[in-house]
Amino acid sequence: MNLLNGNEVSQKIKLEIKSKVEAMRAAGKKAPHLAAILVGSDGASMTYVAAKEKDCHEVGFDSTVLRFDANTTEEELIAEVIKINNNPNIDGLIVQLPLPKHINEKRITETISYKKDVDGFHPMNVGMMFKGLKTFLPATPFGIIKLIEHYGIETSGKYCVVIGRSDIVGKPMSALMLQKNCTVTVCHSKTVDLPSYTQKADIVIAALGRPGFLKGDMVKEGAVVIDVGITRVEDATAKSGFRLKGDVDFESVAPKSSFITPVPGGVGPMTRVGLLLNTLEAIELFK
Amino acid sequence: MNLLNGNEVSQKIKLEIKSKVEAMRAAGKKAPHLAAILVGSDGASMTYVAAKEKDCHEVGFDSTVLRFDANTTEEELIAEVIKINNNPNIDGLIVQLPLPKHINEKRITETISYKKDVDGFHPMNVGMMFKGLKTFLPATPFGIIKLIEHYGIETSGKYCVVIGRSDIVGKPMSALMLQKNCTVTVCHSKTVDLPSYTQKADIVIAALGRPGFLKGDMVKEGAVVIDVGITRVEDATAKSGFRLKGDVDFESVAPKSSFITPVPGGVGPMTRVGLLLNTLEAIELFK
Repeated sequence: MNLLNGNEVSQKIKLEIKSKVEAMRAAGKKAPHLAAILVGSDGASMTYVAAKEKDCHEVGFDSTVLRFDANTTEEELIAEVIKINNNPNIDGLIVQLPLPKHINEKRITETISYKKDVDGFHPMNVGMMFKGLKTFLPATPFGIIKLIEHYGIETSGKYCVVIGRSDIVGKPMSALMLQKNCTVTVCHSKTVDLPSYTQKADIVIAALGRPGFLKGDMVKEGAVVIDVGITRVEDATAKSGFRLKGDVDFESVAPKSSFITPVPGGVGPMTRVGLLLNTLEAIELFK
Repeated sequence: MNLLNGNEVSQKIKLEIKSKVEAMRAAGKKAPHLAAILVGSDGASMTYVAAKEKDCHEVGFDSTVLRFDANTTEEELIAEVIKINNNPNIDGLIVQLPLPKHINEKRITETISYKKDVDGFHPMNVGMMFKGLKTFLPATPFGIIKLIEHYGIETSGKYCVVIGRSDIVGKPMSALMLQKNCTVTVCHSKTVDLPSYTQKADIVIAALGRPGFLKGDMVKEGAVVIDVGITRVEDATAKSGFRLKGDVDFESVAPKSSFITPVPGGVGPMTRVGLLLNTLEAIELFK
């Protein structure tokens, strides 16, 4: 069993990005600039935005966080998004979700120009990804592809089972593994006899959000196992009172796997790197 | 074994569309208007466009065919597409492919406003389909869904194997079957041991374009089999010297299947109805 070390790989990619940005600056060029819109003061959202800001600084990107009061109207927010769409100095824009209930999230995210949509959520980018055209990829699937590539994991002709069909992980993940010439099955809550699929898979990607769901008897010997789940579970022995648990029961699955992502330190840091890679590409893509 | 009779179902749907259009006209409303651009004089393209025109007339749509010389420049064609995009009298626009080699097909099709893209090929529409949002669906997958629904075929929790991963059939078909709560596998040229997938499938959709590929020993007893292939094969006994052959070896597969589409008369006519349904929706969608 080998660990797919997201911390290590993300660090390596970040250093590569950093040296590219240094070269840009040295050549008198503009560095990538990510703008984030944060509405209200939800604790988790503030943490995520702060992490993204930190990542930007680490690789030398410019970053701007636009903070708005929880009472901001939808129209004010739309106006702000349009302003950023038209600002040539900003390459990528993310709006931290969730937004307050009086604001229509779909309307806001679709107002973001797809040319700056570094989250890869805009239908235009989703469509281009699905067709295999070069575009911004959703950060988690993008990060997972980078992790797989880093470890030289063979995908062509392999059988990949994706558990979960969300718009931001399961569906795009299956599209990307198909592009990498896997035979791909998408399983979900309505799947009958899920183990009959996972037990045959060379690669299992668990993204259903149920801690410890995938057990050792559900995977075959030598499988590559990618754990996208991150759920907080109570843990009296932890200082914080909780710990992060993935969708994979690491204890029983790890001994059977050839490669496996730990939680934390697997997919999580790769997701953060996915956003950075999109932002780096944003300075050229669609321009 | 029951036939999934595309001729019959498409006729029934066309009558439904026709009575809706008659009601529109009776209420003094505008009928759906489909425009087709045809460049050059490729025989197959002329036949397809004529068939689409005939279908429009049959259901009472307005239809316009814009014919261009094979020497038409890309810029002239772009200008024409933009003119139609801005013409409020036209609801749907299709550009018959292939275009002459000096014209960039991708550029032309992406110039068509996604709001009039009744072929469902524009990345914006592909993305919306992928996310399960209401939009124009590619005609063949749309027609197949209608056929499945007409016969009340259960999909939730069923195992569906799609053979083929084209942008216009395999990929959108798998997305739509996933939305219908199937567990979906996409197989393709790189798939290892394809029969091991098809033999377990409750529903097999063959869209690889290899006549007679799927044999009886590759499907399980009681499977629903959808044949998207239409290849001309030589046949000395036929008046035309050829006949149409599907991807399914009907003779060996039909006896094992619960439902099966014939070729011709299965998916073909449903594809034509898919385009009509999109054009009907075009008078309201995005307006």
